[in-house]
This record gives sequence, structure tokens and C-alpha cells, in this order.
Amino acid sequence: MNLHQDMLAVGMRAQSAARELNRLNARKKNLILDAMADALEAQHAAITAANEKDLAEAKNAGLSAAMLDRLTLNEHRLQSMIKGLRDVATLKDPIGTLISQWIRPNGLKIVKRRVPIGVICIIYESRPNVTADTAALCIKTSNAVILRGGKEAVHSNAAIAKALIEGGRQKGLPEHAIQLIDTTDRNAVKELVQLEGIIDLVIPRGGETLIRAVAEHARVPVIKHYKGVCHVYVDADANLDMALAIVENAKCHRPGVCNAMETLLVHEKVAAAFLPKFATRMQTRKVEVRGDDAVRAIVTNAKPATEEDWSAEYLDLILAVRVVPSLDAAIDHINRYGTHLSDSIVTESESAQKTFLHEVDSATVYVNASTRFTDGGEFGMGAEIGISTEKLHARGPMGLEELTTYKYLIFGKGQVRQ
Amino acid sequence: MNLHQDMLAVGMRAQSAARELNRLNARKKNLILDAMADALEAQHAAITAANEKDLAEAKNAGLSAAMLDRLTLNEHRLQSMIKGLRDVATLKDPIGTLISQWIRPNGLKIVKRRVPIGVICIIYESRPNVTADTAALCIKTSNAVILRGGKEAVHSNAAIAKALIEGGRQKGLPEHAIQLIDTTDRNAVKELVQLEGIIDLVIPRGGETLIRAVAEHARVPVIKHYKGVCHVYVDADANLDMALAIVENAKCHRPGVCNAMETLLVHEKVAAAFLPKFATRMQTRKVEVRGDDAVRAIVTNAKPATEEDWSAEYLDLILAVRVVPSLDAAIDHINRYGTHLSDSIVTESESAQKTFLHEVDSATVYVNASTRFTDGGEFGMGAEIGISTEKLHARGPMGLEELTTYKYLIFGKGQVRQ
Repeated sequence: MNLHQDMLAVGMRAQSAARELNRLNARKKNLILDAMADALEAQHAAITAANEKDLAEAKNAGLSAAMLDRLTLNEHRLQSMIKGLRDVATLKDPIGTLISQWIRPNGLKIVKRRVPIGVICIIYESRPNVTADTAALCIKTSNAVILRGGKEAVHSNAAIAKALIEGGRQKGLPEHAIQLIDTTDRNAVKELVQLEGIIDLVIPRGGETLIRAVAEHARVPVIKHYKGVCHVYVDADANLDMALAIVENAKCHRPGVCNAMETLLVHEKVAAAFLPKFATRMQTRKVEVRGDDAVRAIVTNAKPATEEDWSAEYLDLILAVRVVPSLDAAIDHINRYGTHLSDSIVTESESAQKTFLHEVDSATVYVNASTRFTDGGEFGMGAEIGISTEKLHARGPMGLEELTTYKYLIFGKGQVRQ
Repeated sequence: MNLHQDMLAVGMRAQSAARELNRLNARKKNLILDAMADALEAQHAAITAANEKDLAEAKNAGLSAAMLDRLTLNEHRLQSMIKGLRDVATLKDPIGTLISQWIRPNGLKIVKRRVPIGVICIIYESRPNVTADTAALCIKTSNAVILRGGKEAVHSNAAIAKALIEGGRQKGLPEHAIQLIDTTDRNAVKELVQLEGIIDLVIPRGGETLIRAVAEHARVPVIKHYKGVCHVYVDADANLDMALAIVENAKCHRPGVCNAMETLLVHEKVAAAFLPKFATRMQTRKVEVRGDDAVRAIVTNAKPATEEDWSAEYLDLILAVRVVPSLDAAIDHINRYGTHLSDSIVTESESAQKTFLHEVDSATVYVNASTRFTDGGEFGMGAEIGISTEKLHARGPMGLEELTTYKYLIFGKGQVRQ
């Protein structure tokens, strides 16, 4: 079969499913979501068996322990996937929401309402729970979804998608509203992201290589974040105990994720008081410190940081540390080397807080908290379909509202333009 | 000089100007806008002389009458350009607006605020007033702007930009907040739209060729609309006099613009009553009618419409006409052949209105009014920087709010992630 024709057919089917989805009300969609959750429970054994098959193949192929962990669907993860679907059902439906309305002097009434985006394609890597999470968010917002998971999770994803579709269909989920791409041909992604006018939005979720590959070929809008180089800045007026706890959490809580801290900036006035305690704590937590000269004068076992370290996303227990002469220097460093995702200042000074919040050009800017909170769940959005470092449409964690667009409905009585 | 280096330097200067702009409050920006308007008045003679130079060169080069008209800055247009700047000054500044805020169970306070996008590049064709209009909208929203006008308007644009910059600088406009690209090298556009991470948004304004050229090379987000294939659907329950007035306005008021009607759909039940009057009116207005068989059975002088006519953007006094068997058929036609910009139903039936508004997938959907109202000015936005047929970020007319993004400010007391 011709891959282009196949993917075009997938897109066209999704487009017509999107029109049917747009006719479902909130109550109906919630019944579908609950039925999808019920089906995951009912097909529990089949999903677990499929996952074991993937894990066995992945071990044979010599995948890393981290990859195997991401791929594993244990009981806890399966239950939380099911709970996720039920939680999404309880969230408020943004579709149809009135954004604003006004009447023009000529009597035209203009109404701006939230509507679905249409057809959304999610391209992701090993974690099979993404299949259920993203399908739930898309159905809730009346968007047809095309799912393209990683090849290492192919059996797990197929089993999950089968359950979701069978369950949903029983309560009126339109045919092809959820489609899983079953070919593992890498060119399928290239074909999908070129379906201009058919697919409305592509959201790649995964490592930088995946995201760059998607963005390179895309003729369809893509919302993405390449990487997260996040900072904590310990100001001259910081509570140093608080700073130490935040730094430890931002670096060590889960070093492999995008909102983990990669660079620490310390004001020169508190460097002598803060860095020794910091060095001890990092040693306990087995974090490799790479510092500039001022840092190495105090943290004697630190390696020298190079220019590359300031823009490195380690995703590991490694931390770049720099002493800065001022708040402005810290802000300049963050805006220059950062990826505009999640940055935090630790300070008791209200004026420093205000300047940092205003001038750091990032999606999420923190005062006295860990960068690790940049997450749809932590923000109270109920769920997230991804994180955006784009400035258009969606910035930061993306929940239900970010899966909508709007349209203007204009009511006249025969008005023509003068 | 190396063009890539030149454009990179333009981008970097804009980036640093954007940071300075972000420090100006609304009052300060309004003083700058008024000073820009004053300078346009003061340099009136120089601008007119520059425009005459462009017009003389354009005539020598044999440009079309329509092109010459767009290029002409007569007294009325110059005054309305000046008034536009003063009007933008009086509009509400969206920057800093609180979008929403909430407190999480762990005590984190999350505040979502409007912020500037950063650096915006406008690529446009012959109309010199775009130089002033877009500069005003960008400065009002604290965005640095890079202007690239058409080569036929090079002297006019230079004179206008000089006045804007000189006037603005007197009241504290940051250096390089407004930059006009002075090279007419076509490759400059290609270089600009590839400045990923430096230019945040490109808005091309002009014909489809210009927009496709921009989109093809872009590595930076682009908001655009390629073309406008807009429809009026005369329903079975239409007031036929109203329908005739709306059809005439939508087609003839200004046929060369994107929100003009290109295809008329008529319900078969009213075809016999409506089409003869319609044919007479179109003949009076010198509109060429291209119809399907059902139309030609009634409008005997209509040419036959081909498949291409349904997706043609004539931008001229030509109209494709089709008789449809139902409201659903009309909606299917519009969603299939249209460009999702501006479509209207004429009907007295509330249920037909509701279905049409809900199911037509366009930025602006009208009941009993002309498609010609899709315009920032007509919508009461005060001004527009363009029109979008995209579904992400901005849809339909784009005013001040569409030139902003948001960021999350998070206030903690030492919270770390559990």
C-alpha cells in the first residue's frame, strides 16, 4: 500500500469524525469517557499481557533501564490511567463557552465562542499512558485524534486504543474519532505532518530528536518544546535555608524531566554563605557540580563550567553553577541561555521579585518555589496534553482550554457594508 | 555586506529594544504614539514628495491602475493614517491584564497575565499606510517591530518610518523598536523568517504568492491567510429582498478583497423565485455569473461553472453560483471548498441559523449580514494588523489582544514538589 494514500485516508476519516464529535454535548462526551474508562478496566488483562510482550521485546533489544521504566504499565500506573479518564470526564467542558460578545453601532451582534480545533495528531515516545491521556483530552474537547506512539510500545498502545475505542463506541463515540497509526514505518510521521488543511495541529511529545524531526517536515502547525534549561536564582536577599531546599528539589526530585533545574545562579553577596552548605548537600545527593571561577574558589571539588554548560540540558544529576554580580545579570543570563520554560527566584525582596517576574521572558516564572511545578496536574488543570515553549496560542502546561480555538458568530438584520 | 549577518543584526537589535519596550507603562506608550502622529503631520510634505517619487517610478514601470491606487497616499489617506495612530493611543492597553489567577492546595498562587510577544516582523506589499498602522499596534502592545514593505513603496515607507521613529524617540521610544528594512533584496525576507528564537512572529500581508513564499521558508511562527473564498447561502426560509441586498454588497462593494463573496449557494426551493431578480441585478452591476446546470436553467446567460470555480478566489466581478438541495449540502460545500474565513446564511429560520453557525467551520460566520464585515475596524477593534485563517492563537481579524501572549507568575513560600 502507498503510505501517503494511507495517511491521507486516516486524516480524511478524522476530519469527518471531528464534524460528528462537534455535534455531541458535554453530557454525552462524559458518558463516552466513562465508558472508555470502564473498558480499560474490563480489558485489564489483555492490556497487561500486551505490555509484557513489549517489555520482553524491549529487553531483548537492550533498551536502557530508564526506557524500560517508562514503558512499564504496572498496576498503579494502569489504575491512574483509568482514574485520569474519569477525572477528565468531571472537568468543565470548555467547548461552546462564551468568550465575549458586543453589539456594534450598526446593530450587528458579535459573539466570540470557544470551538474545537478539529483534528489533532499526537506523536509520542515510549510511555503507553499517553495513549489514554491524550485521547481523553481530545474527546473532551470534541477534537478527533490521531495517535502515533513509539515502536517499542506498539502492543501496549494497540491494546489500550482497542479498549478505548470499543468502550467509547458503546456510548456513541464517532467512528475514527480515535485512530492509532499501526504502521511502525518512520515515514508515516513525515506524511502526517504534511497534511495541511486536514490535520489542524501536531503535538510531538518526547526527546529533542523526535521534536526536531517533526518540526523539520511539518507543514501543519506544531506546538512543542524542544528542551528545558531551567534556572533557580538565589538572590542577595534570599532565605538561604529555603533556597537550599528549593535547589535540591529542582535538581534532584526528577532530574530527567524538562522542568528540572539545569543551572543555578547565585548572587555574589550570598555566595560565601550559601555555596558551602550547597556543596555538602549536592555531594550527599551525588550531584556533579560544574562552576565558574567564583564558584570553584568556594566549591573546591567543582569541575570548571564551559560556555556549553550554560545552555546544556543534562537531564541528569549534573548542575551548572554561576555567581552573578546582580539581579539584572541573573535575568540577562536566563533570557540568553534559558529555554523560556520554568525559572525561579528565591528572595525576600519584593522589588527583586517584581523585577524578576516582569523581565524573565519565560512561560512560568516562580518566586520562592521549585521549578518542578510547571505541569498541568500541579497547576490544577486536571491533566495536560503537553508543555509549550512557544509564545503563540499556548504557553506552558496545556490543558483542555489550550485544545480549543474560537469563532465569531455575527447576528444581523440585513446589514450591508457602507 | 553579508545579508544573513545584516538581518541577524536587525533581529538582535529588535530583541534588545523589546526588553526596553517591556519597561514602558501604558501612559508612556500613548505619549510616544501621539508624538509619532505629530511627526507624521510635521513631515507631511516630505512624505507626500516621497510618495510622488514612488508613483512616478511605478508609472514608468507600468504598474496596474489597481497597484497605483493602493500605492497612492492622498490627503485623505494621510490624515486617516495620522488619525489611526491617535486612535490606537486611546485604546485600552492589553499588556499586564490579569487573565486569571488561582491558589493551589499547597498554597502556590498562580497568576496568568498578558505579556508582549516580543519581536514581530511584518512583510507587506504596496500600501504605505501599513507602515504606520502596524508600527502603532506593535508599539502599543510593547512589541518591537521589523517592517519590510514592497519595493514599489520604498520611498514612501522610508519617509513614514523616519517620521515615526524621530517623533517617537522624542518621547522615549527605545532605539530600534521600529526598524524598516531598507534593502530591496528579495532574499532579505528569506533570512528574516529563518531567525528562529529571535523573531517571535511573522505576519505576511499581501497576495497569495507573497504569503506562500514567506510560509515556505519560515522557521519562525507565521500567522496568515492565503485567500478568502467566502460564501453567502440563501436558505429556503430567506427574506429574498434582504438576500439580494446582501449578495450585491458581498460581491460588488469591493470585489478585490478577501472578505468579498466568491460563491453563492441557493436552496432549490427558492431558486425559481430568487435567481431571476438576482440575474437582473448582477447584469446591472456587470457581474459575470458562472452557474451549475440548475442555475443555468434559470439564468440563461450564465456561463457553466467547472469544479475549479468552487474554489476560485476571483477578486473580481465574477461569481460562482450553485443550487443546493438542503442546508446540510450548503454547509458541506462551504466546509469543503471554502477557506474558512467569512461565510453568511440568509434565513428567517432559527433552527437553520443555529445549525449553520454551529457547523460552518469558519473564523466568522454570519446570519443575515454581508461577509464584508470581517475586518478589525468593523468589529470595533479600533485597528487590525491582519486577518488569520489559522486556528491557533488568532482567528479572524487581529487587533491588539492578538499581538500578546501570556505568562504564568507563581508565588510560593518555599514549596517543593513532593
